[in-house]
Amino acid sequence: MREIKKLLICARGEIALRILRSAKEMGMTCVVAHSSADETSLPVKWADEAVNLGAPHAKKSYLNQDLIIQAALDAGADAIHPGYGFLSENADFARKVVEANLIFVGPQHELIAQMGNKAQAIETAKKAGVPVVPGSDGLVQTIEAALAAANDVGYPILIKAAAGGGGRGIRVAYNADELQAQIPQSQQEALAAFGDAGVYLERYIARARHIEVQILGDGDNAVHLFERDCSLQRRRQKIWEEAPAQILSEETRQKLLESAVKLAKKVKYKSAGTLEYLYDVDTQEFFFIEMNTRIQVEHTITEEICGVDLIKAMLLIAQGHALPYQQNDIQMRGHAIEIRINAENPDNNFMPSPGTLTEVVWPLGAGVRIDSMAYSGYTIPPYYDSLIGKLIIWAEDRPSALARLHRALDEIKVAGVHTTLPFFKSLLSVNDVQKNDFHTVWVEQWMNHCSSASQKEAS
Amino acid sequence: MREIKKLLICARGEIALRILRSAKEMGMTCVVAHSSADETSLPVKWADEAVNLGAPHAKKSYLNQDLIIQAALDAGADAIHPGYGFLSENADFARKVVEANLIFVGPQHELIAQMGNKAQAIETAKKAGVPVVPGSDGLVQTIEAALAAANDVGYPILIKAAAGGGGRGIRVAYNADELQAQIPQSQQEALAAFGDAGVYLERYIARARHIEVQILGDGDNAVHLFERDCSLQRRRQKIWEEAPAQILSEETRQKLLESAVKLAKKVKYKSAGTLEYLYDVDTQEFFFIEMNTRIQVEHTITEEICGVDLIKAMLLIAQGHALPYQQNDIQMRGHAIEIRINAENPDNNFMPSPGTLTEVVWPLGAGVRIDSMAYSGYTIPPYYDSLIGKLIIWAEDRPSALARLHRALDEIKVAGVHTTLPFFKSLLSVNDVQKNDFHTVWVEQWMNHCSSASQKEAS
Repeated sequence: MREIKKLLICARGEIALRILRSAKEMGMTCVVAHSSADETSLPVKWADEAVNLGAPHAKKSYLNQDLIIQAALDAGADAIHPGYGFLSENADFARKVVEANLIFVGPQHELIAQMGNKAQAIETAKKAGVPVVPGSDGLVQTIEAALAAANDVGYPILIKAAAGGGGRGIRVAYNADELQAQIPQSQQEALAAFGDAGVYLERYIARARHIEVQILGDGDNAVHLFERDCSLQRRRQKIWEEAPAQILSEETRQKLLESAVKLAKKVKYKSAGTLEYLYDVDTQEFFFIEMNTRIQVEHTITEEICGVDLIKAMLLIAQGHALPYQQNDIQMRGHAIEIRINAENPDNNFMPSPGTLTEVVWPLGAGVRIDSMAYSGYTIPPYYDSLIGKLIIWAEDRPSALARLHRALDEIKVAGVHTTLPFFKSLLSVNDVQKNDFHTVWVEQWMNHCSSASQKEAS
Repeated sequence: MREIKKLLICARGEIALRILRSAKEMGMTCVVAHSSADETSLPVKWADEAVNLGAPHAKKSYLNQDLIIQAALDAGADAIHPGYGFLSENADFARKVVEANLIFVGPQHELIAQMGNKAQAIETAKKAGVPVVPGSDGLVQTIEAALAAANDVGYPILIKAAAGGGGRGIRVAYNADELQAQIPQSQQEALAAFGDAGVYLERYIARARHIEVQILGDGDNAVHLFERDCSLQRRRQKIWEEAPAQILSEETRQKLLESAVKLAKKVKYKSAGTLEYLYDVDTQEFFFIEMNTRIQVEHTITEEICGVDLIKAMLLIAQGHALPYQQNDIQMRGHAIEIRINAENPDNNFMPSPGTLTEVVWPLGAGVRIDSMAYSGYTIPPYYDSLIGKLIIWAEDRPSALARLHRALDEIKVAGVHTTLPFFKSLLSVNDVQKNDFHTVWVEQWMNHCSSASQKEAS
């Protein structure tokens, strides 16, 4: 047990503010370490102390491990909270923080390393009995091995390049003939594209939902805080998240949640973490895909439905306290939606739109929460991601939450730069969104459809 | 069952906005009827339609019954929501609204009349078996009757002028001798002051908490939504409210809530309503004192702990729907605090401070809700009450809520007029407030103590 009297927050933007607020409410003195470009941001203004790390570029500021640790030591801080992004999932940094006799507000560095390696994470899940996406057991070396594996997994099946990523080097085979023909082609393509001919097979999930489980562990025990549905994505980036996942049956939900707790307990996880799954809408199966060993952008909707403070829980656990909740203490209530307000131009391929905010009017009233570092007069620097705030809605049920989101989008005003707000207004009006009938590539399909429809109209 | 497609809101300020938001979320078209002085307020700006009732003074606008009903008819509205204050507890108005074939969003006009008469309300409570403050059964005509009644009630005992009110015409007798001496004096004083010599006796409660129960009824059934503690008052005006009332034992809470539901069921109450009680800190007894047949300023903290929308519930019930919740659906969670931000000068005897707001910065983030019509540039008119907004805090428990309130008060900025915000910062720092150790006249005692302490210091 070691008390955090002084906390160094090494994060920027809305998450720096989020951490600052909870830490202050817990009575901690807060130091915000920031780049020179973030001097005028709210977390820096409102911190008890601020340390300018210099260089605006993240590499020399928010990613500069030794500089940050030295800043914490110089400030007399007891702990470092890394927020999300930057160094939050860097096992070396977490280890160095501990070696400097500081508390790292996150899980054990060994677990960050273990879960940060996708193959190891999958292996860990398998060992804990958590289902993973069915496929070949590693690379398929021969056509015979591919056919045998495909026979087990079933068609259609994906052929994936081992060295690929982000959707590159993927083909679909709908039957054995296609698979037989495509394996050599895929291997050749993979060699040409990635310098590595290795390919493996994976279940093709035509309609997948991205569903994730929030967990908290203290090293001895672990609990879940229900799940989030983050299936509305643009180019694999979450843009709109909901909790709970209304698409799950109660039976499936319980199995999903149990699997996450099982894994968290197995590795003796200590802090807040998230297990990400794919959910197959057609077969109603779920498969673990990866674990995020940090707080997530969308943690807010879990806080809203569960009535908890996840940052506070992280800080308590980091000080050596036992879990602040037993599983039975955690009950979910109502429905929450978060949308990410990015300074991007939806009419120009979501190009970043840094600049000065000339007017900011936040929606208020029942069931509306704003997490943002933006204010009228704030200049968004061009060096980092374009997230400037999150609009979080809570209501008694999903239809009420959608109606409240609509109302909040009518009230909100962020002027001076382009933002994704008009995009969300369009999205909200779509029948599939209203009916909760979408999947992880639905947004792109819808955008293509809209764009071809408007082209037809124009011609 | 009659649908409200179009709603006329005859209220101003934050409650007009509160109603507007929920009604819009329910898909209703909203007409805001307003005085000429409220033209630039947010509810008027954001309404689908606005009707200018003319004259700034309430008597000619917000209290002008026929004008308002005609405005609703002209606009093609189906219903009128009266908010709080003004005509919200005017039985004649409620009756006239119904006679004009409009829905009155509130209880039956007969019940408004019945509960608006304090003696009738007390009688109704007694019949329902709800405890009321012990005292003489009506006026005491003779000294013998007074002594007999005091014998039953116990000493000390209050002698109250029947025609008094607001604390005027009250004396305390600590024993029979004092009572015997004071009865004639009180009668003479009452005659001189109020033209009516009638006096009655009532239990003296040295340390009372003001505790109230929120109920919802649909005419057939009724539920409670737990209780609020509104004991921090200045001159009998609530300034800071909390839910739940942590001072109650679970056993007392259950009895209190049951009594409220019993009364609501007995009168077949239809709408949202509040039963107000005095709770004797020393004896742990509670006594019904009156019922408010409308939505209350502090309804927000009930919404926060119960996860409900009371305005929506009122609008559903007014349309003829059954109660949206069964008693078991209503669970409380965490702790909520509301403070009333008034445009008043705490350093000058809380004189109203109308004027133009030069800057408004609201606190944001987890557990913070703002209900306010104020914005940078808004001019507070001098004609109405001085409430410009409510800061509502929710957190897991009372200490966390106090810490969050502290954080929010650090973030909030309302400039251009005097407000009660500095007063709340002082109040929050007082040990008795932190420890939940106060009663309905504690604020005045504390203020007197502070003022005499600072006088001593100055001398």
